[in-house]
Amino acid sequence: MAELSTSLDFIVEFYEVDSMKIVWHGNYLNYMERVRCKLLSKIQHNYNQMEEAGYAWPVVKIKVKYIAPLRFLQKARIEAFLNEWENCLKISYKITDLETGKLLTKAESEHIAINVATGETCFVSPKEFTDRVKAYANL
Amino acid sequence: MAELSTSLDFIVEFYEVDSMKIVWHGNYLNYMERVRCKLLSKIQHNYNQMEEAGYAWPVVKIKVKYIAPLRFLQKARIEAFLNEWENCLKISYKITDLETGKLLTKAESEHIAINVATGETCFVSPKEFTDRVKAYANL
Amino acid sequence: MAELSTSLDFIVEFYEVDSMKIVWHGNYLNYMERVRCKLLSKIQHNYNQMEEAGYAWPVVKIKVKYIAPLRFLQKARIEAFLNEWENCLKISYKITDLETGKLLTKAESEHIAINVATGETCFVSPKEFTDRVKAYANL
Amino acid sequence: MAELSTSLDFIVEFYEVDSMKIVWHGNYLNYMERVRCKLLSKIQHNYNQMEEAGYAWPVVKIKVKYIAPLRFLQKARIEAFLNEWENCLKISYKITDLETGKLLTKAESEHIAINVATGETCFVSPKEFTDRVKAYANL
Repeated sequence: MAELSTSLDFIVEFYEVDSMKIVWHGNYLNYMERVRCKLLSKIQHNYNQMEEAGYAWPVVKIKVKYIAPLRFLQKARIEAFLNEWENCLKISYKITDLETGKLLTKAESEHIAINVATGETCFVSPKEFTDRVKAYANL
Repeated sequence: MAELSTSLDFIVEFYEVDSMKIVWHGNYLNYMERVRCKLLSKIQHNYNQMEEAGYAWPVVKIKVKYIAPLRFLQKARIEAFLNEWENCLKISYKITDLETGKLLTKAESEHIAINVATGETCFVSPKEFTDRVKAYANL
Repeated sequence: MAELSTSLDFIVEFYEVDSMKIVWHGNYLNYMERVRCKLLSKIQHNYNQMEEAGYAWPVVKIKVKYIAPLRFLQKARIEAFLNEWENCLKISYKITDLETGKLLTKAESEHIAINVATGETCFVSPKEFTDRVKAYANL
Repeated sequence: MAELSTSLDFIVEFYEVDSMKIVWHGNYLNYMERVRCKLLSKIQHNYNQMEEAGYAWPVVKIKVKYIAPLRFLQKARIEAFLNEWENCLKISYKITDLETGKLLTKAESEHIAINVATGETCFVSPKEFTDRVKAYANL
């Protein structure tokens, strides 16, 4: 199975930094969302395509482990890995310094599909989504 | 005509402050939105009621004059004044230090009504809204 | 020992809501920071007092479990509980709907003290902080 | 004199969009800050270099005119132009759709230098900065 992962390079913006001169911890969820969108686009199932298929994928769990801080103008890479997709989405994340490769942050998110019309939770991922994963991964 | 204004007291949060230890200038638009919502609720025409009436009121202009900075844990008051409402909304804002009354910020926003169904701009404010203003102001 | 907890009531702002009309999951970290600041103020050791004592308390872990969404204008309560304080800070959080008391969110944060002058991690919480906890809790 | 301007292409993120499915107006100040940083880096005088020279450049005025909305996943370009620099910084901004070139937003910001050590406002821009502008522009 082809690896379902992607990465995104970014530079720390001034408005992301707090008065301790490090990125405020809440802003890491923005980085995670950016790379998650890129990952879903890669399998041609971004948020707009989800919505057209009649589903939303709200976040149900978030875990972040902050190992070393990010500073203003620092260049970093965030990687996302699709670990589970049949019943829910489990994605893990890794942030590293772009120059040194030093590990800065580890994180996970979990998402479940909601049928937008009925408001019901899907205990199995929608076929529209799993078909995309399989097509991408040549399963 | 009764004065169409309201005010809101707030305390500066840690995540609003930048590395110069003052509130990042973009966060003032949050304070403005908070007091604007309170002003519209006062005339019983908040964003949800607008939407039910079929209108949205996007911001078309913003002007902020930063006179003195806000700092972490500082207590401040923001006031909003409805200056124009017949063809568009013009609201002005004033932020003062809660203890000293010192003027810290002056701002303005301008909004025009959009008919959500047609996407068209309304060159006269919707009756649903002007009725509310008149009822509140005893016009 | 007196309970080391506090709570804060809030209303959901327009700019916190995403295009699915629920609070964007990243904004919950703001609510957590607000009530955490209130908790630390209660024992007279807020971020400014930490800094004067020569310490910073960066977040090292965050966990959030989103049980039910928050919507625009919803009134909610966030509670914070100080669960550990001798070697690091462990705080747990609970968000409930203000009217129904329904549980919406559970979360945890973990913080370790850093000596600002040396940049070193403290494996035991600074006396300036533990004294405050003990004084408050009558230990 | 060489043109003192720069541009930055960006894609609209999910967390920037509000419940009307357009970018929340406050988030435009982030785009402006990003391109402003790039402009100042171009003349080798970014925020870190300012700080080392002993100055901060707080925003004293912001003006934004929202002409047409930005939507999720839309690709856009923001351009920044340094219009004044001898006594204060005046920068103007233009956002256009990346594909059609359609003008979406016009904005301006004004900044004055503050001597960090004394807290005093500089009524003439610091030599450290004007030298950089002149060197870049071959004046």
